Amino acid sequence: MRDVAIIGVGMTKFGRLEGKDLMDLLAEASLNAMKDANVENKEIDAVYVGNMLSAAINHQTAIASSLVDRISIFPAAADKVENGPASGGSAVKNGFLAVASGVYDLVLVVGGEKMTSADTDVLTDYIATMTHPTAEYVHGITLPALAAMLMRIYMQRYGVTERHIAMVAVKNHKNGMKNPYAHIHREITIEGAMQSVMISDPLRLYYTCPISDGAAAVILCPADKAEEYRDKPVKIIGVGQATDVQCVHEREDPAVLKSCRIAAEKAYKMAGITPKDIDVAEVHDAFEILELVESEDVGLFEKGKAHLAVEKGVTEIDGEMPINPSGGLKARGHPVGATGVAQIVELVWQLRGEAGERQIKKDAKRALACNFGGFGNNTVIHILEAMWK
Amino acid sequence: MRDVAIIGVGMTKFGRLEGKDLMDLLAEASLNAMKDANVENKEIDAVYVGNMLSAAINHQTAIASSLVDRISIFPAAADKVENGPASGGSAVKNGFLAVASGVYDLVLVVGGEKMTSADTDVLTDYIATMTHPTAEYVHGITLPALAAMLMRIYMQRYGVTERHIAMVAVKNHKNGMKNPYAHIHREITIEGAMQSVMISDPLRLYYTCPISDGAAAVILCPADKAEEYRDKPVKIIGVGQATDVQCVHEREDPAVLKSCRIAAEKAYKMAGITPKDIDVAEVHDAFEILELVESEDVGLFEKGKAHLAVEKGVTEIDGEMPINPSGGLKARGHPVGATGVAQIVELVWQLRGEAGERQIKKDAKRALACNFGGFGNNTVIHILEAMWK
Repeated sequence: MRDVAIIGVGMTKFGRLEGKDLMDLLAEASLNAMKDANVENKEIDAVYVGNMLSAAINHQTAIASSLVDRISIFPAAADKVENGPASGGSAVKNGFLAVASGVYDLVLVVGGEKMTSADTDVLTDYIATMTHPTAEYVHGITLPALAAMLMRIYMQRYGVTERHIAMVAVKNHKNGMKNPYAHIHREITIEGAMQSVMISDPLRLYYTCPISDGAAAVILCPADKAEEYRDKPVKIIGVGQATDVQCVHEREDPAVLKSCRIAAEKAYKMAGITPKDIDVAEVHDAFEILELVESEDVGLFEKGKAHLAVEKGVTEIDGEMPINPSGGLKARGHPVGATGVAQIVELVWQLRGEAGERQIKKDAKRALACNFGGFGNNTVIHILEAMWK
Repeated sequence: MRDVAIIGVGMTKFGRLEGKDLMDLLAEASLNAMKDANVENKEIDAVYVGNMLSAAINHQTAIASSLVDRISIFPAAADKVENGPASGGSAVKNGFLAVASGVYDLVLVVGGEKMTSADTDVLTDYIATMTHPTAEYVHGITLPALAAMLMRIYMQRYGVTERHIAMVAVKNHKNGMKNPYAHIHREITIEGAMQSVMISDPLRLYYTCPISDGAAAVILCPADKAEEYRDKPVKIIGVGQATDVQCVHEREDPAVLKSCRIAAEKAYKMAGITPKDIDVAEVHDAFEILELVESEDVGLFEKGKAHLAVEKGVTEIDGEMPINPSGGLKARGHPVGATGVAQIVELVWQLRGEAGERQIKKDAKRALACNFGGFGNNTVIHILEAMWK
C-alpha cells in the first residue's frame, strides 16, 4: 500500500446559497482545492463525488461525469459515492484507496449537497429513506426522532442533563462565529438553547444542525510526491469504516455506536496509534448528543464522561482536546454529502495553522474525523498527520 | 499494487420480477456469488453496491448499509457507487482498487436495479437526468433520441444499413434464448425487427434494450489467495475508466466514443496486451448501434467495419470474436446498476466453460467488458484472464 497525502483543500461557504446549483458548488470547492494544491486540470487522474440526494432533490444523476465536464479535467475517471450522511467520508476513503493502490496518482475528492431548494418536509422524508424501509421508515421514524431517543437513553444512563447538551451547542456556535465558511454566525446561550422549540422530546431545535447548501474538496496524491506540489502536506495515516445493525431497536445497546467503535479501532490500527495521540477532532454532530457519544466511542473520552470534559472546557478551541473547532455540523452546517470532506478540510487547516480566529491553541500533529452514516450504522473515520512536524 | 481475482459470481434472473424489491434482488445475487466463492458472511471485508436510481424510484438511500444488514456481513465497510448506466462497472472498479490497495481482502461487489415498479415515462425522465442539465435535459433530449442521432450519423458515414443493426438484435436475441438469466426469451427475425415500432427515427423498438429488474454480483480477493477458495479463479488484468465531454453536440466527433477509446487504452496498458489478445467480449448495447460502435472503439474491429464482422457471423457464439454471448442488454435486459457486473459474471462463466447452451466454441483465455455511462461520456472497461489457462 502506498502512503497517501492531502496536498490541497478547499470549500464553499456553507449556508442558504441562493443562485448556486449543485454543480456550481462542486465546481467552486474543487477549483479551490486544486488551486491550494497547485495542480493543473490535466493532472487529475480521478474524481470521487460524495453526495446523497442529487437524484432525489436536484433531479440529476451521474454528477461525477458532469463535474469533469464543468471543470475540464478530461479524461479523469469519475464516480459518485453515496453512504447517506457519510457520503463525504466514503468518497475520501475511496479516493485514498485509489491512490494507495498505485493505479491513480492525483485524485480529487469533493462532497456537496444543494438542499435548501427543496421543502423541509420533502427533505426530512428523503433523509429518512436511509432508515430500514419496512421496519423503521414505514412507521414514520425520522432522524430527529432517532436522535431524541438516543438523547433520552444516554442522559438517563450517564446522569447527563439537558444543560450539558446545550453547552455543546453553545460551544459549537461560538466556534462557528469565528469560521467564515460557517452557515450560522450567531452566538447562543445555554438558557436560549434550553428554551428553543421542542422538535422531538427531549430534542430541541438548538440541539440539531441546520439544512445547508455547500461543498468541500481535497486533493490526494502519493505521500512521497506531496512536496513536489506544496509545503505542509498532511498524511492520511488511518482509515476505518464499519457497519452495524440497521434498526436502532435491534442493536445490542442503542446508546453505543458500535460502527463508530469498530471504525475507530481499524483506523487506529492502520495508523499504529491510540486515541491519546489525537490532538483535535471533528465529529458528526448532526445532533449535539452525537458529539458526546461519538467522542466517547472513538476513544477520546471514557464512556459516559464526555459531558464532564465539556463542562471543564476541554473541548473548546483553547482546550486540551478541541472538538469541532469549525463549529461542527451545528454551526458550519450540514450539506449532507459535503460534511465528511469538510471535516477533513477543517482538520488540514488546523494542522497547518491556517484556521484564523478559530485556530486551536495547542500545536496539533494528529487529527481525527468521524463521519456518521445512516443513524450510526455506517461510520467512516480518518486519521491525519502533519508530515512536517 | 496487488493482483486481484474474481472467485465467485452470481446473479438473479433479469426481467419483470414481481414481488421482489431492490434489496431482495441485491441479497439474492450477493448470496449466489458468496456461495460460488465458498466464502462465509464473516469473511467479507467490504461491499460496493452499483446502483443508479434507488433514491429516485425506490425511495431508498444508503442501500449498501441496508444490504450489509440484510445478508449479515457486519461490520463490512459499505458504499454505493453511482455512475449512471456504468454504475456496475464503477462498483467493480472500486472493489478492485480496494483489494489492490492491500486494505481489504474479500470484497463483494453487487449491482442491481428495481425498475419495473416505476412508470415508463418516469423512468425515461429519470434516465435522462444523466444528460447535461441545462444544455441537453431542459431541451427534452432522451437517451433513445441520442442513440437515434448516433445511429443516423454512423450509418451515413460508414455505409451501414438498418439491416445491419437488425442483425445485431437478431444475434443477441438468439443468444438470450440460450441464457436462463435473460429477461427476453424470444427469437426475432431481421424483417420483424425492421418492422417494429419507430421510437426515434431511425431507432426502432427492437434496436433498444428492455426495462428490467435484476442484480449481479462478484467476489474479489487477492489473486495469490484465490485458490484457497475455489478452482478456476479469474484475474482482473486490466481496468480502465475515462470521461468525455458531456454534451454530445460539443464532442469532437459524435460518431466516436472517445471515453471508450481512452478507457480501453488504459485497460490494455495495465494488462500488457492488445485487442488481438481478447477472445470474447460483453459490450453495452443499450441500443444495438452501440454494439458496433463500442466493439470498434475498444479495438476489436477497425472503425466502420464492425457491421462486416456481424454479416460474416464473426460475433456469433461460434464465431471468432463472440460478442454478447449472454444476449447483451438487448435480450438479457438492462437493470441499470446491474449491467456492468452482469457483463463480468457472464465472462467469468464463459472463461470457466460454465455458460451452458450459450458457451462460446473457442477456448477463451481473455475477456473484455465494456460498460458505458451517461451517453458515452464515462466508460469503464475490465479485462479478465483465466488464471488456470
